[in-house]
Amino acid sequence: MPRLAYLGPEGTFTEEALRLLDPAAERLPCATVSAALNAARAGDADGAVVPLENSVEGAITTTLDEFAWGEPLMINAELLLPVRFSLLARPGTEMPHIKRVYTHPAAITQCRAYVSRELPDAVVVAAPSTAAAAQEVSLPGSPYDAAIAAPIAGEHYGLVELASDIGDRTDTVTRFVKVCRPDGPLPEATGSDRTSLVVFLADDHPGALLEMLTEFSVRGVNLTRVESRPTGDGIGRYFFHFDFEGHAADARVGEALAGLHRIAGEVRFLGSYPRADGIAPQVKRGTTDAEFAQAGDWLARVRAGQV
Amino acid sequence: MPRLAYLGPEGTFTEEALRLLDPAAERLPCATVSAALNAARAGDADGAVVPLENSVEGAITTTLDEFAWGEPLMINAELLLPVRFSLLARPGTEMPHIKRVYTHPAAITQCRAYVSRELPDAVVVAAPSTAAAAQEVSLPGSPYDAAIAAPIAGEHYGLVELASDIGDRTDTVTRFVKVCRPDGPLPEATGSDRTSLVVFLADDHPGALLEMLTEFSVRGVNLTRVESRPTGDGIGRYFFHFDFEGHAADARVGEALAGLHRIAGEVRFLGSYPRADGIAPQVKRGTTDAEFAQAGDWLARVRAGQV
Amino acid sequence: MPRLAYLGPEGTFTEEALRLLDPAAERLPCATVSAALNAARAGDADGAVVPLENSVEGAITTTLDEFAWGEPLMINAELLLPVRFSLLARPGTEMPHIKRVYTHPAAITQCRAYVSRELPDAVVVAAPSTAAAAQEVSLPGSPYDAAIAAPIAGEHYGLVELASDIGDRTDTVTRFVKVCRPDGPLPEATGSDRTSLVVFLADDHPGALLEMLTEFSVRGVNLTRVESRPTGDGIGRYFFHFDFEGHAADARVGEALAGLHRIAGEVRFLGSYPRADGIAPQVKRGTTDAEFAQAGDWLARVRAGQV
Amino acid sequence: MPRLAYLGPEGTFTEEALRLLDPAAERLPCATVSAALNAARAGDADGAVVPLENSVEGAITTTLDEFAWGEPLMINAELLLPVRFSLLARPGTEMPHIKRVYTHPAAITQCRAYVSRELPDAVVVAAPSTAAAAQEVSLPGSPYDAAIAAPIAGEHYGLVELASDIGDRTDTVTRFVKVCRPDGPLPEATGSDRTSLVVFLADDHPGALLEMLTEFSVRGVNLTRVESRPTGDGIGRYFFHFDFEGHAADARVGEALAGLHRIAGEVRFLGSYPRADGIAPQVKRGTTDAEFAQAGDWLARVRAGQV
Repeated sequence: MPRLAYLGPEGTFTEEALRLLDPAAERLPCATVSAALNAARAGDADGAVVPLENSVEGAITTTLDEFAWGEPLMINAELLLPVRFSLLARPGTEMPHIKRVYTHPAAITQCRAYVSRELPDAVVVAAPSTAAAAQEVSLPGSPYDAAIAAPIAGEHYGLVELASDIGDRTDTVTRFVKVCRPDGPLPEATGSDRTSLVVFLADDHPGALLEMLTEFSVRGVNLTRVESRPTGDGIGRYFFHFDFEGHAADARVGEALAGLHRIAGEVRFLGSYPRADGIAPQVKRGTTDAEFAQAGDWLARVRAGQV
Repeated sequence: MPRLAYLGPEGTFTEEALRLLDPAAERLPCATVSAALNAARAGDADGAVVPLENSVEGAITTTLDEFAWGEPLMINAELLLPVRFSLLARPGTEMPHIKRVYTHPAAITQCRAYVSRELPDAVVVAAPSTAAAAQEVSLPGSPYDAAIAAPIAGEHYGLVELASDIGDRTDTVTRFVKVCRPDGPLPEATGSDRTSLVVFLADDHPGALLEMLTEFSVRGVNLTRVESRPTGDGIGRYFFHFDFEGHAADARVGEALAGLHRIAGEVRFLGSYPRADGIAPQVKRGTTDAEFAQAGDWLARVRAGQV
Repeated sequence: MPRLAYLGPEGTFTEEALRLLDPAAERLPCATVSAALNAARAGDADGAVVPLENSVEGAITTTLDEFAWGEPLMINAELLLPVRFSLLARPGTEMPHIKRVYTHPAAITQCRAYVSRELPDAVVVAAPSTAAAAQEVSLPGSPYDAAIAAPIAGEHYGLVELASDIGDRTDTVTRFVKVCRPDGPLPEATGSDRTSLVVFLADDHPGALLEMLTEFSVRGVNLTRVESRPTGDGIGRYFFHFDFEGHAADARVGEALAGLHRIAGEVRFLGSYPRADGIAPQVKRGTTDAEFAQAGDWLARVRAGQV
Repeated sequence: MPRLAYLGPEGTFTEEALRLLDPAAERLPCATVSAALNAARAGDADGAVVPLENSVEGAITTTLDEFAWGEPLMINAELLLPVRFSLLARPGTEMPHIKRVYTHPAAITQCRAYVSRELPDAVVVAAPSTAAAAQEVSLPGSPYDAAIAAPIAGEHYGLVELASDIGDRTDTVTRFVKVCRPDGPLPEATGSDRTSLVVFLADDHPGALLEMLTEFSVRGVNLTRVESRPTGDGIGRYFFHFDFEGHAADARVGEALAGLHRIAGEVRFLGSYPRADGIAPQVKRGTTDAEFAQAGDWLARVRAGQV
């Protein structure tokens, strides 16, 4: 039974993601993203589950920077988790009793319409995390009557769900990834894969990003995400996170990876893994594995002078 | 005397930036970036000063998203401010007295080496902002002995600077921008200007980013920053912030702007303004204003059948 | 009644092209392409009709070089003429009488199958042109029994057409253009136009051709023909002829023309004129005249600080 | 002793090229470029020498089309031969005697200034080739007093050189290539090599040429020549000849070749061979063989999950 570290405490969305990614795993809650990743690095866990980006808030920069600068880890799975907030209270609490609500500021923002409508007189107080809010509310003498948190937090802390899915937007999604130490085989290619990468520029010249994108496009590899992050060496100096369609085992992806490696200062491979959305790539003419193989055979004949 | 809103309270790095950008301005501290920008939008202030990015932390996403989604504002100046942390205490405090230090978590991270070395036994507690930490420490009955904050916070709150420039890195920089309502002329082109832009894609197809970068590169316009941000419509849907060399009044920049406007779904112009670093652009052959003018004259003759 | 010079003598395919391009024109046969173009340049004719390329033989390099180096002329019409060879003889000649056939070497090559099959015992002799062959055969004492030439040559020289369309390929086509002095308005844009251009490089660096093609592609202008020709300054030094979709009056074409003018050493405009094949261009999103106008309006507002 | 076919008769510039390329070879003069190449194909000769392009006249299209459509041959050497015309006459002839000059029309054009100045009263008559002119002049009863031809023609036909290097331009050059059947190893890479290729498009879409050039440029392979030729299937349908820096054995060239093979309809390799001008390629960062090897090693580790 694998042991997976995650961004805790118990009852976070990350725990929910972990349970969906690997229901059988033993779970090790950690206080921060860095702590969860360090647990995996140090061997205290077999891997870790951390959030990577959110469809409203954007990238989780701590995760990006850990992947870029910390001891290498490799992504072997991803999950898209809808962010569904519930109104949670101690058993016996009824809506009219709720005068003080406790939750994380992001949830305050995202549930504003519901609270205005259903709890117009309630005071809403900021908590360090939604799970911590639920935990606090679960204490008998708590000054708070309800928490806004993930449904899973209710289960953990023995709270009752008075209302579910109370976010203003019902389509908010967080993308989580599961990582492990880079010492084993990659997940097998499935035909619907994603590959993640960090690229540091060799020299930061005009057109450097365009050159990198051309390495992808000329092999028909479609990008799905680009993030720039500061290198720390001053405003105007960035490195890049790329997500793109396909698996390192694909010929077109492999050649693009090698192309980036040649022109960049440093490329850190972050993993190839099945896409959570199951979307198959649009493969451009001339970029299938079979076409790469045929071209390679032809080149071998050319080099032997047999044309 | 202009009145400028800024991210307060008094004593923040943003106040320091504002005082450097416009020493004569009346200063209106606001609780959040959004509040400062809204003050400018509503006419409660003539403009606002907010942080845009930091050389270690990266983009200030609240600022980026306000610029993209809020009522339009226009950047008319930028400033690069070195982030210098000071150890501040009430008058009479000496180093050996310091048992409890109060500061913002970013400062905790960035001053770790100094604190370990000089205050090995002190407890460091997280504050909402460095300025708030200084304010707290200035109170006679404060449980904290010292704050880590901007030097300006010491002046504001009557604290003494026990040590200066105590960050682990001495080259950390934050970039601030001054914005106003978009109802007047752009700042004049100086020969060392920057232009900022938000672009929303018309349809999110593979290669869309490459196409946008090509609109810049074909006119010899060098990008200095690209940020992707989620549109909110699900993982995998992004819009882009671009900073690039040159001024909207430059022929090459104007043609690139118009080119982006033609291929993108929406382009929001965020301003052309003098670069804080004074670096002049590398102008590629064929992209000076004079060469654009000559080509335009030639085209007029061609269209008149006079070749 | 305009007077048009052409590559003669009477009875050539060029004459046939001229009669189709301008049935009412007075015709001035000239011995060479250069002579025909010079007649137009000198005002001895109002224009000239010359061949530009053939679907089997390729470019007529004399024409290309005259357009590039000679005194400027402007193309105002084009014609695609199927190359149909006829077997022509003096009245009264019958197939079994034909022992000696006279024609141009290109026609010998292109009618080989017919001659082998229908005139297996005939000797075929090379003539300076198909029209000259017809003229010779028309003389009562000619040693030749038949000519292979354009049908029009039969009419001119009083010959009978014993067989028509005797070429091995029935789809060979020659493209002719009509030129005039560049002192009037361009032909009006029709929605199905072609533009021709000569470009000399400023400095012959690697990637120069790619840069030029990018100037077209970024504005959605599709090339229909590229020819490289030597500059005369040594092997490895070339200039380029381009044909592309659209009219100089089109916004996208105009911007591409100006873009080439900025990056190239010299651009010689050769004309915008209706396409003979009537094919309308594929206009890429963002490149219509309306979209250029909207982008221009938006840019004007941006430059005025009104966003 | 190898036997090489060439474009004859004896005394042509092609013979001169052959003697420089392989002084020891037995020489087989042929009437046409096609005949010379067919001799090599059929095994009547071990190879052939033919002209490929001239710095004034441009491509020798017969050669290009033979390479594209005929049974495959492979270029294994090239030569740049200055075109130097001599005035040749029978022994005893003196300048004032010369009333009738015989030569090929290209030589008439290229020696016009000399003839006007030195032989103002001479009649110049067109010959089928410069070598044929020399041969004719060598006959005792010839109606011609002098020929303009290659110096080598004088040696062959026992003529005296009355004047040398009489062309108006002294820098005209013809590029010759030596070809063999494609059944042996390629010439070894020398560090200053050229590779030649024919590419037929898979489907003739807008941007096809740009895509092909991008396959070269992304691997830092510099083109030295591009020629478009008609496919024969109608105006507007072309295939392409490319010459570029480097050898098929070079990693960057191999990957570019394979890339073209994947996106094109058909690629015909015409050979890799030492450059006659000895110019070494400008090798872009990231495109050396060593960098390709390092990137390949890195990719192998990535695919094994060892990062």
